[in-house]
Amino acid sequence: MTNNEIKKLCGKVKRSSRSLALADTKIKNKALIAMGKALLKNSAHILSENRKDVSLAKRTGLPGALIERLSLSPSKISDMADSIFAIAKLGDPVGKTLETRKRPNGLLIKKVTVPLGVILIIYESRPNVTADCVALCLKSSNAVILRGGSEAINTNIAIFTALKKELVRAGLPGDSIAMIADTDRRIVNELLCETGSIDLVIPRGGESLIREVTVRSRIPVIKHYKGVCHTYVDASADLKMAEDICFNAKVQRPGVCNAMETMLVNRSVAKKFLPKMIKRFEKAGVEIRGDSETRSIVPGIKPATDDDWYTEYLDLILSVKIVKDVDEAIAHIMKYGSYHSDAIVTRNKNNAQKFLDEVDSACVYVNASTRFTDGGEFGKGAEMGISTDKIHARGPMGLEELVSYKYAVYGNGQVRK
Amino acid sequence: MTNNEIKKLCGKVKRSSRSLALADTKIKNKALIAMGKALLKNSAHILSENRKDVSLAKRTGLPGALIERLSLSPSKISDMADSIFAIAKLGDPVGKTLETRKRPNGLLIKKVTVPLGVILIIYESRPNVTADCVALCLKSSNAVILRGGSEAINTNIAIFTALKKELVRAGLPGDSIAMIADTDRRIVNELLCETGSIDLVIPRGGESLIREVTVRSRIPVIKHYKGVCHTYVDASADLKMAEDICFNAKVQRPGVCNAMETMLVNRSVAKKFLPKMIKRFEKAGVEIRGDSETRSIVPGIKPATDDDWYTEYLDLILSVKIVKDVDEAIAHIMKYGSYHSDAIVTRNKNNAQKFLDEVDSACVYVNASTRFTDGGEFGKGAEMGISTDKIHARGPMGLEELVSYKYAVYGNGQVRK
Repeated sequence: MTNNEIKKLCGKVKRSSRSLALADTKIKNKALIAMGKALLKNSAHILSENRKDVSLAKRTGLPGALIERLSLSPSKISDMADSIFAIAKLGDPVGKTLETRKRPNGLLIKKVTVPLGVILIIYESRPNVTADCVALCLKSSNAVILRGGSEAINTNIAIFTALKKELVRAGLPGDSIAMIADTDRRIVNELLCETGSIDLVIPRGGESLIREVTVRSRIPVIKHYKGVCHTYVDASADLKMAEDICFNAKVQRPGVCNAMETMLVNRSVAKKFLPKMIKRFEKAGVEIRGDSETRSIVPGIKPATDDDWYTEYLDLILSVKIVKDVDEAIAHIMKYGSYHSDAIVTRNKNNAQKFLDEVDSACVYVNASTRFTDGGEFGKGAEMGISTDKIHARGPMGLEELVSYKYAVYGNGQVRK
Repeated sequence: MTNNEIKKLCGKVKRSSRSLALADTKIKNKALIAMGKALLKNSAHILSENRKDVSLAKRTGLPGALIERLSLSPSKISDMADSIFAIAKLGDPVGKTLETRKRPNGLLIKKVTVPLGVILIIYESRPNVTADCVALCLKSSNAVILRGGSEAINTNIAIFTALKKELVRAGLPGDSIAMIADTDRRIVNELLCETGSIDLVIPRGGESLIREVTVRSRIPVIKHYKGVCHTYVDASADLKMAEDICFNAKVQRPGVCNAMETMLVNRSVAKKFLPKMIKRFEKAGVEIRGDSETRSIVPGIKPATDDDWYTEYLDLILSVKIVKDVDEAIAHIMKYGSYHSDAIVTRNKNNAQKFLDEVDSACVYVNASTRFTDGGEFGKGAEMGISTDKIHARGPMGLEELVSYKYAVYGNGQVRK
């Protein structure tokens, strides 16, 4: 694609976004249901395109975790369709009156939700992101430009084509969804300067992708950054509960951003808690990296370096540190964490409150696993990802976070004095 | 300041922001009242420092409008103090529960407002911004780094010093407000890369300042951009009302972003409406620039060029265009406007609704002057400015827009299945 072609495409999407903004809820839902059905109907084609991507990925030596994310199956396609059906059932986030003010001069001011406009999504590997994003954007009347990773390009095109056909069939503007099939990196840089057409950029992927987008973009960005999540086992914790929570947070699905990477343990319970806990982790194949005190309690485990405390392993690896009290735990989290999801296990209400107040993360847990940071688990129905930013949206981003608002002001001739 | 000194300062402010985040409402309000009183008490000193800035500005040939903005008087200082007293009386935006969800698994999820952290404000000329921003940030428990224009540096330092003394006296962290007194431009570029310390950048000033900040910043920015505001006089308008609204929107205070810059008139009422309206404008010293049809109805006025439709005059100049219908008016606004504030004057409910739905501006008015786009007029008590962005905050930005939120999740041992 030439720069001129990119500009033209963005302009087309922007113009389409204006009519999409006015689309009727019923028509949007009808289109969504048709899209879900289309994925099921076209699953043979989608799977055969996916096999092309997977075999190329294997030949080029992509890591196993990435290949696992890339690979589709009939049941994964049916999950994608179910997710679209679920989005069709959610309430329309557009056109809601958030607030009404009547001023002394008679002006009536209504704060009403409106779509953001055009959203650019830059993502890697997982083809389900294509379907989720198209559905969430359509439901929130946002136009969307998708730029997936080159490793999933055939799969993404197959999914996108099936969805777009149904959009047009429903009478909605076909240009309100677009996919950049050209995998040249330069194109991303051009897109990030299209301030006149694109209203928001959401990068989803590895650290380096997100960092590059943040540096280059002239358009507002909502980052979906890494999760260096902690669980702190307090002095007064129910140790059986702590064990189950920590085990779940690390082992249930280690490759995701809300999995625990560092376990902090209060010194007063360390000798009682750690040997049994670590044995359970090791039995599940978890590699433990401990500070010197942990290693003196449980000999034979690897030492943790300063780098470990900063690391999102996304794997069956856990760093363990012993701390004096809740204050030291909070200080560690604020220094090394990524402000995503952190938990305390305690029976002490003051410590729980202190942890909730002072840990400046999107989601702060008392006596529960960090794995619950998820749009579905939060009851939002579906999610665009987990924002690690504080501006606009924080934590799981659902439909409500995909809108802006405008003020509609009704007068009868008011002028300013 | 060296880059290292900038980094150190930002780190100090960030650390202070953590304790400010926990500050008690009563103590914040006490500090605010003391700050307002301190401005009054120190007004002689502030005025004498202001005279230095003004005389230098005159010598260096700054435009009259800028000198007017820069100049303080005892009454302007008392307005500043009143604004701080008003902020003290407003509700605390921090610690509010926005939403509570109880999940089927027993998890209780509370969405609670929290400060953004550290806000960098880059502004020009008006010294009252210094006092307003310190007060709004303190009330919302945000630390703030102020970078005012070099032309107001002595005034800004005098105001800042008086305010900071009261912050410390109230027992609040003194490092949670900082002013960059070094006026070297390089420092702004360095600040805009301090992603680890600064959470939000708000630029307030001319177009070129805002554009440069947007290009350079790696930190989220909320733009306070220009206002090319329109009033459309519809076929069914009460023409007397239309005249008063248009006159007010242009003349009452032409130098501000919510003043009207372009008047659009429906063809069917143009001959009746324009001659009288334009006479009234000209009597008030307004220069009219019209399209060819306007000039054929009212001979002797200047022609408007395509550039005029894009221009924020901030002055007693108005461009006038005749349009066929509400659709043409909307199309003009969407092409040439800045999505700030636009109005329709009409008695036709369908046209009013169409205008409200299709004009994608922060504030859309029916039968009222665009001059009402203002935090005070909207009942927000005070404002940080008018956001022309759609992300996070749109339109007048008050205390409620200066917070983020976190999810506090209460469990009793929940783990994810």
